[in-house]
Order: sequence, then structure tokens, then C-alpha cells
Amino acid sequence: MTLEERVGELAGDVRPADAGAARAAADRLAGLATPPGGLGRLGAVAVRLAAVAGRCPPPVPAAPAVVVAAGDHGVHARGVSAWPQEVTAAIVAGALEGRAAVSAIARSVGAQVAVLDVGVATPLPDHPGLRRARVRAGTADLSRGPAMTREEAARALLAGAGLAEELVTGGADLLVAGEMGIANTTPAAALVAAFTGRPADEVTGPGAGADDAALARKTATVAAALAHHRPDPADPLGVLAAVGGLEHAALAGVLLSGAADGVPVVLDGVSSAAAALVAAALAPAVTGRLIAGHRSAEPGCAAALDSLGLDPVLDLGLRLGEGTGGLLAVPLVQAAARALAETALLADVAPG
Amino acid sequence: MTLEERVGELAGDVRPADAGAARAAADRLAGLATPPGGLGRLGAVAVRLAAVAGRCPPPVPAAPAVVVAAGDHGVHARGVSAWPQEVTAAIVAGALEGRAAVSAIARSVGAQVAVLDVGVATPLPDHPGLRRARVRAGTADLSRGPAMTREEAARALLAGAGLAEELVTGGADLLVAGEMGIANTTPAAALVAAFTGRPADEVTGPGAGADDAALARKTATVAAALAHHRPDPADPLGVLAAVGGLEHAALAGVLLSGAADGVPVVLDGVSSAAAALVAAALAPAVTGRLIAGHRSAEPGCAAALDSLGLDPVLDLGLRLGEGTGGLLAVPLVQAAARALAETALLADVAPG
Repeated sequence: MTLEERVGELAGDVRPADAGAARAAADRLAGLATPPGGLGRLGAVAVRLAAVAGRCPPPVPAAPAVVVAAGDHGVHARGVSAWPQEVTAAIVAGALEGRAAVSAIARSVGAQVAVLDVGVATPLPDHPGLRRARVRAGTADLSRGPAMTREEAARALLAGAGLAEELVTGGADLLVAGEMGIANTTPAAALVAAFTGRPADEVTGPGAGADDAALARKTATVAAALAHHRPDPADPLGVLAAVGGLEHAALAGVLLSGAADGVPVVLDGVSSAAAALVAAALAPAVTGRLIAGHRSAEPGCAAALDSLGLDPVLDLGLRLGEGTGGLLAVPLVQAAARALAETALLADVAPG
Repeated sequence: MTLEERVGELAGDVRPADAGAARAAADRLAGLATPPGGLGRLGAVAVRLAAVAGRCPPPVPAAPAVVVAAGDHGVHARGVSAWPQEVTAAIVAGALEGRAAVSAIARSVGAQVAVLDVGVATPLPDHPGLRRARVRAGTADLSRGPAMTREEAARALLAGAGLAEELVTGGADLLVAGEMGIANTTPAAALVAAFTGRPADEVTGPGAGADDAALARKTATVAAALAHHRPDPADPLGVLAAVGGLEHAALAGVLLSGAADGVPVVLDGVSSAAAALVAAALAPAVTGRLIAGHRSAEPGCAAALDSLGLDPVLDLGLRLGEGTGGLLAVPLVQAAARALAETALLADVAPG
């Protein structure tokens, strides 16, 4: 079986979420001893958890894990980022040592961190916490040609899927899709534009702090790449190969694998939202198994979530990446499940 | 010392938060190995925690407690609520048995629940978890006369303060201000209007599910009460007595006591935001020690928070009350503290 066929097989394993369990959860929600609609957005999260689990009330996720897929980007050479490319490896090293923002926030919410090198350009030191699946030493410059081959995109996707499966087999019952990769909001914007049809200037933002000049270069680069490659959203692997990043491919695999394995997957910012567009193009049913953790400060995030019909739990103005926004939503997802399961029904408490 | 003098003494114990610690936290935040401003709203939370604690990095709150102050309201007779008054006691009983929404969410975030009967009209059964400080069996109808006497308002405020002090002495290091009380969004709206100067129709909402007719009655009742009492925001106890609720008074005491004791206090919805307006009128420095947990669906909540200059952490469309929205913000407050304390500094990780 070719790598592309394996991707197709994985996509085929994603079944629609359970509409019956969702209806049961919506009914239970309406019967709780709370004001009507009192749980707000958390009510919708609880219903989704039931649909993913296939039962009502759904289990409370107790063992969350964040995948941090890391890669570098040839398009960095176009001056689209405020940071040198070596920062990717430095932040990955920080995560392995437990000193990155994702480390602190994962500890705070009780989540496991799994770091996946799917294409960091700078060699990384050995570390027991590092999963190595380096498809190539960063992508090629997507403004000059394809970022990678289709086979490389498939390989990176399957690496993410494999790690997700390993985590779920090991007991993780909720996955968060995070990333590291200096310049990766450029391919993320290109992916969002390709799948949503929106113009570059609506989906491109300053990422990790590009100034006005860098943002202008970035937007022009995304627009030129779209004009050059004319990516076809009906060919998701082709879009990934042309304008994506290795970590976006890996995260698409995380989403598909988590969905196939029946665990809820929480998105972080624009890169995981872009990966969700890829995953949904491969397997539309994946969307019903995703939870949008937050709306990041990057405009492509909201554009992608709108297109997917996902309503973000948080809106904190974060621009951290690394899976942090997804992790921050985890306690709310857990609380939504507990509120649905453990709040009395009005019929049981109302006087008279 | 009179009760009013004791309230004045408590207010005098609230010292301004530590501006030096806040500056140190802002400096540390700017130096973290994250994109500039990457923590978004959580950065401001971390700075506030430092200001409250008087040191940087601030300690991570580890023992949160929610006070659920419960009371009834004579104005219920005006048809301002969709629910019979006895529901207050039923929900209080549910909370004592661990079956209310606040119970489920408190368990989910690891918080202690302390229920305070400061004026429930229906007699409550004995329960070891119930703190009894029933000032009167619900307020009088604020649309016909004062809701309570100044002395009753002071007594309820001091009951809340006493419970907060007891919780902090017992180890609680973060308080959440919650309430139960059918019809209590009517006095909350009146308090918000009185302190912010906004008209009744801008601050009155459907609360726990009032239909259009009930909302119209509620808005008219708030407007009439304001016209009748002409409450003077320079006399906070007078405003409370005229148009407030016993639980609003108790929560004002929780905020003042928590602030005086140096712990951060997280607001929930419109009732705790109204209590914060009372507390801030008594002791302006209290505001710098508060964290707005969320913007509830009730319009008076946003109006009060705007007036206080507080930016809510969450915006989930909740209309649950009971302290739930404040509790849901607790994991984010903890994560903000950990992110500030435990993320490496850029100077320590950047290559070259």
C-alpha cells in the first residue's frame, strides 16, 4: 500500500459522530436544574462530547495529551517572520526540558506533552521525550515551488497519526493539536486561503510578532503562492504538498487518528485549524469530533473555524501556539462533561 | 462599634494592590520566551495576581473556594422571574447535596463550596455544609419601599466578610463570589444602574429565563425603583438597603474581606459584579484585587465590569449563576500564574 493509500485508509476510518447520543445529551441539557441555555457554549461542548463518545452522559476526559508537532519552513527565507529559524529548535528544546509555555500550561491542566520532530531544520539533541519522524529538514520555499512532495506530506501526516494512536493506546482520552515552527503561520494562512477561498489579506496576520513590513511581505508571499500553485481543495494532499508545512500535515494526521479512535480532539490556533481543513477535506466526518479550543489573535484561525462551523470555547487574544490555547480549554471541556453528568435534573429538585 | 462602623473598618483594611510587583510581573511577562503579548488576556491576569500577592512571580492559587450567598427577594411578587420563589431553597439544597451546577463545576476545578444562607425565605433543612446567617426571610419589595434597613445590609455584608475570612484562615488562597436567589437579577440590575448611571433598559436582562412580558415588567420595576429611591452612589450602604439584595450585600463583604486578606477574588456574573460596585464604592482599592471571571449573558454584567475597568477572562454566554462562571475561570487563573512563573525567559533560550 502506498503512503497515499494509507492516508485514504485512515480517512476512511473516521465515522460520523453519534447523532443519537448528541440528541440524548441535548435533551438532558434541557432538563438540567439550570436556567434554559444556562451552560451557554459549554452546553454545546457537552453535546459534542456525547456525540464523540457515543453515549450520554459522556465520560469526563481525564487523561489529556497535547501533541506538539514541530517543523521548519523554507519560506522563512522570504522575511515573513520576526524570528531566526533556529528559534524553532530552541523552543522545542525548551519544551523537552519542561520550560516552554506549553510545558507550564500542560502541567497546570494535567496534560501529557508529546513532542514530534516532523521536520525541524536545526539538529535536535537526543531526549527521551522527543519522537523523531523528521521527514525532511524543513520544507522548501513554497513561494518558489512546492513546499514538499505529496509523499512527504503523506509521510508527515502518518507520523502524526501514529503518535496520536500511540497516545490513545497508552490511555490518553483527549488530544490537543499543537505545533512549533518559526514562519509556520505563513503556510497556515496559505492553507486556510486554499480551503476557504478567502483572499490572502483576510487570513494572514502577524503571527509571532511580524512588523508591518514583514506582514506585508507575508501577505504578498501567500497571495503569490496561491496564484502560482492554484491549489485544488478537492486534492487535500496536493494542497498540503504545495503550500503546507510538515507540522500541519502531522496535525491533520493527529486529528484523523484521534477521530478514528473515538477521542475528542481540541484545536489550538491557526495551524491546527488549517490542519483541520485538510483533515475535513480528507474525511468530512472529522469535524463533528473536533472542539475549537480558542480563537487566536491570527485572523486565519477565525476564518478556518467559521468555514468548519466550529465555535471556539475561548477568546483570550492568545498568540502563543504550541497547543497552549487548546490546553487552556481542557478544564472547560472537563467541566462541561461534569456539569452535564452531575447536575440534578429539574424534575428531581423542583418544589411542588 | 455599630455595624456600619464595622463595615467602614473593613473597607479601611483594603490596601491598594502592589504596583511594584505588578511592574515586575509586566517586565517578566515581556521577557518570556513567547511571542510579544502572546499570553493575551492571561498576561493581564498574571500581572494582577502579582499585584495582589505583592510579589513576582505570584504564587499559583492552589486552594480555591466559592462562596454561594443565598437570599430571596420581595420584588419577586412583581412577576419579574420565570421561577417560583421556592426554587431558591431547592437549589440551595441541591448545592448542599452536591447536585447543583456549582457542585459539579467546583469538583471539576478542585474548589471548595461554602453555602451561606443570608436570607432565604423558605426554611432550609439542617446540613453541616450550610452556614446560617439569615438576616431576614428575604428582602422587602424594593419597588414599594427599601429592600432592607441599612443595619440589615451591614449585617449581611459582615456575614459574607466573616465567611470569607474563615475560608482564608482555613487555607483558601482564592475566592469566587457566587450566589443563589430567584429574582436576584432585578436588584442586581438596580444596583448596576445606581452605581453606573445607566438607564434600567441597558442593564436589565432576562436573568434565568424571563420571557418578554416578564422582562418588560422587570425593566419597568427597576426604572420605577430608581425613580422612587433616587439612590446615592456616594452612600453605598444606602443603595444596598434601598434596591439591593441580601446576597449582594454578603458578596460585597466577601470581596472586601478577601481583598483585605490579600487573596485574589474572582467575580461571577451580574450579581457579583453589582456587589463589586458596592465594594468599590466603599473601598476603591478593592478593584485592583478582583478578577472578572466571565461576561455573563446578562447585560448588567458587562455594564458593571466596564464601569470597574475589569476585562472578563471568559465569555461563554453563561446564565447559570451560583459562582459557576467564576469557577470556570479558576483553571485559567492558575495557568496564567504558572505560565508567568515557569516559562523560560527568552534571554535564556534564544540561540546565539
